[in-house]
Amino acid sequence: MTTVAAYAAPAAKAPLERTTIERRAVGEFDVLIDIKFAGICHSDIHQAREGWGEAIFPMVPGHEIAGVVAEVGSGVTRYAVGDRVGVGCMVDSCRECDNCKAGLEQYCTGGGMIGTYNALDRNGEPTYGGYSHQIVVDENYVVRIPDGLSLDVAAPLLCAGITTYSPLKHWNAGPGKKVAIVGMGGLGHMAVKIAHALGAEVTVLSQSLRKQEDGLKLGADHYYATSDPKTFEELAGTFDLILSTVSAPLNLDQFLSLLRTDGAFVNVGAPEEPVALNLFSVIMGRKSLAGSGIGGIQETQEMLDFCAEHGFGAEIELIAASEINEAYERVLASDVRYRFVIDTATI
Amino acid sequence: MTTVAAYAAPAAKAPLERTTIERRAVGEFDVLIDIKFAGICHSDIHQAREGWGEAIFPMVPGHEIAGVVAEVGSGVTRYAVGDRVGVGCMVDSCRECDNCKAGLEQYCTGGGMIGTYNALDRNGEPTYGGYSHQIVVDENYVVRIPDGLSLDVAAPLLCAGITTYSPLKHWNAGPGKKVAIVGMGGLGHMAVKIAHALGAEVTVLSQSLRKQEDGLKLGADHYYATSDPKTFEELAGTFDLILSTVSAPLNLDQFLSLLRTDGAFVNVGAPEEPVALNLFSVIMGRKSLAGSGIGGIQETQEMLDFCAEHGFGAEIELIAASEINEAYERVLASDVRYRFVIDTATI
Repeated sequence: MTTVAAYAAPAAKAPLERTTIERRAVGEFDVLIDIKFAGICHSDIHQAREGWGEAIFPMVPGHEIAGVVAEVGSGVTRYAVGDRVGVGCMVDSCRECDNCKAGLEQYCTGGGMIGTYNALDRNGEPTYGGYSHQIVVDENYVVRIPDGLSLDVAAPLLCAGITTYSPLKHWNAGPGKKVAIVGMGGLGHMAVKIAHALGAEVTVLSQSLRKQEDGLKLGADHYYATSDPKTFEELAGTFDLILSTVSAPLNLDQFLSLLRTDGAFVNVGAPEEPVALNLFSVIMGRKSLAGSGIGGIQETQEMLDFCAEHGFGAEIELIAASEINEAYERVLASDVRYRFVIDTATI
Repeated sequence: MTTVAAYAAPAAKAPLERTTIERRAVGEFDVLIDIKFAGICHSDIHQAREGWGEAIFPMVPGHEIAGVVAEVGSGVTRYAVGDRVGVGCMVDSCRECDNCKAGLEQYCTGGGMIGTYNALDRNGEPTYGGYSHQIVVDENYVVRIPDGLSLDVAAPLLCAGITTYSPLKHWNAGPGKKVAIVGMGGLGHMAVKIAHALGAEVTVLSQSLRKQEDGLKLGADHYYATSDPKTFEELAGTFDLILSTVSAPLNLDQFLSLLRTDGAFVNVGAPEEPVALNLFSVIMGRKSLAGSGIGGIQETQEMLDFCAEHGFGAEIELIAASEINEAYERVLASDVRYRFVIDTATI
């Protein structure tokens, strides 16, 4: 056991504060990582405030982790001290179900994936996330950050990157495909970069045109404001794929009308409340309303390699740990371009 | 113009009564059909009672039409007098859009398909459906009923058959696939027969076990009552595909929990009211909530050939025209095994 400095929410809706936590001793297949940077994901806030249901406190959020290997267990073969590595939304799963074997550990049916924080590990101990100095993770749930990527802009890829890369690949975003990205936040701005790099024709559908210049710079071909009703007239029946990255509830019938025949509207954002839908919106045109959750470990590695190859990470605002609570408020106000990343040296 | 006997609803929610309508003269590419049988589809009732919005009256419902060719236009090449033919939910479409060219006329984007009734044709005249003695239809929207199929049990295939065949094929129901059919009504009983004939392992999810014996006889491997909460525990994560044929609103989150990873819940039934959905139900397991509307002309022919090859039509209760209003009430009470078919000689 090692005592490690961290930022934690002591209770639901309480501000985060500096504390210390215990990390387990480095086991045979474990990697001890000196965390350098941790991204702030909207879902950190959902969970720290119990918006998605009962949670475990104290909670150390953070599942966008980039750092350097400080120690490895005797059985570790894939990483060595000094390697640049990342950890995303999960730190374990059953490893035996069909999904785990297929590289879809995020959909583990053998008890479910074990979250990087706000979960219980195999021994029933709570997991603590990346807002801390160090973390111990089984090597199978660690990925390598390619040399071309700085650790600070790589951190958000571990959630925002894979969460958008995985459905864009699964629903065949690429040349000849018209893809719309709903929302220009942490996930949305990565979706624009990735969809563009995959070769798709990319349209941003954002509430306003406030971030239009950025969107076009990041790779969007078109940019529309959804607050303008004309957008829905003009773009009716246009897209093969719409990826919604927002967690605010949308008028789904309106967005489904923007799909072509056989198109899919895929949610990676998750509103806390149920949404309403007229089923005629999917029946007319054989459309799908689908969802996707992060991505598997192997696909996360593939995504990191893809981003490095195309020379981009996330667009970030680097902050000190003392600014976390303020950053949470700014995330809720959509006032971040485009991801807060904590310099964990400041904890 | 020919004057033809028909059964029509004179106004929304008024009982249907005997009347006469005018059919257009047989044009160059038209086929005049002596209608022998017309199925009663739940959507006839939705439309005659304006459940799906404003409708055109008087309305002659009926889009499950089986009959015999009585006359052909000079340019008709595909049919001859005496041929056994059918007409389904549409009698025309633009023929020029990508969907029409791809055999997806039901999703025509060049103004939309022209419904067999409750629609306006190219000349702005109202279309009248199958509850009548004769109909005139362009040969491109007529299909051939194979010799092996009696006309009475073939009639319901024109809507109930194609509406279930098309999504079962599109979502790959077949050997090795676990397929659930929600509802054991007119559409549901056809879905069971077709999914079984396609080689899938078929489960019926019906409100009660009242029709269990029939379901198993028609090809279901398993039969569960959705009124029993244990059904949802026992079948969690089971199905590759769930086809919902009911128009009552369902607890979608509950049904989505029955899907495996990457599974699809496909609606061909259409409730009049919006439904509610927690988007986590699709995000966890990369699931889809989709829809499908009837099928194209070529696929309708394929379906008829498939049913003839496998030696089945619909299970029907043959009625006289004077029983139509009573039959509507019985459809609404789910009291029909499994499709009312009007013997149009009784009009």
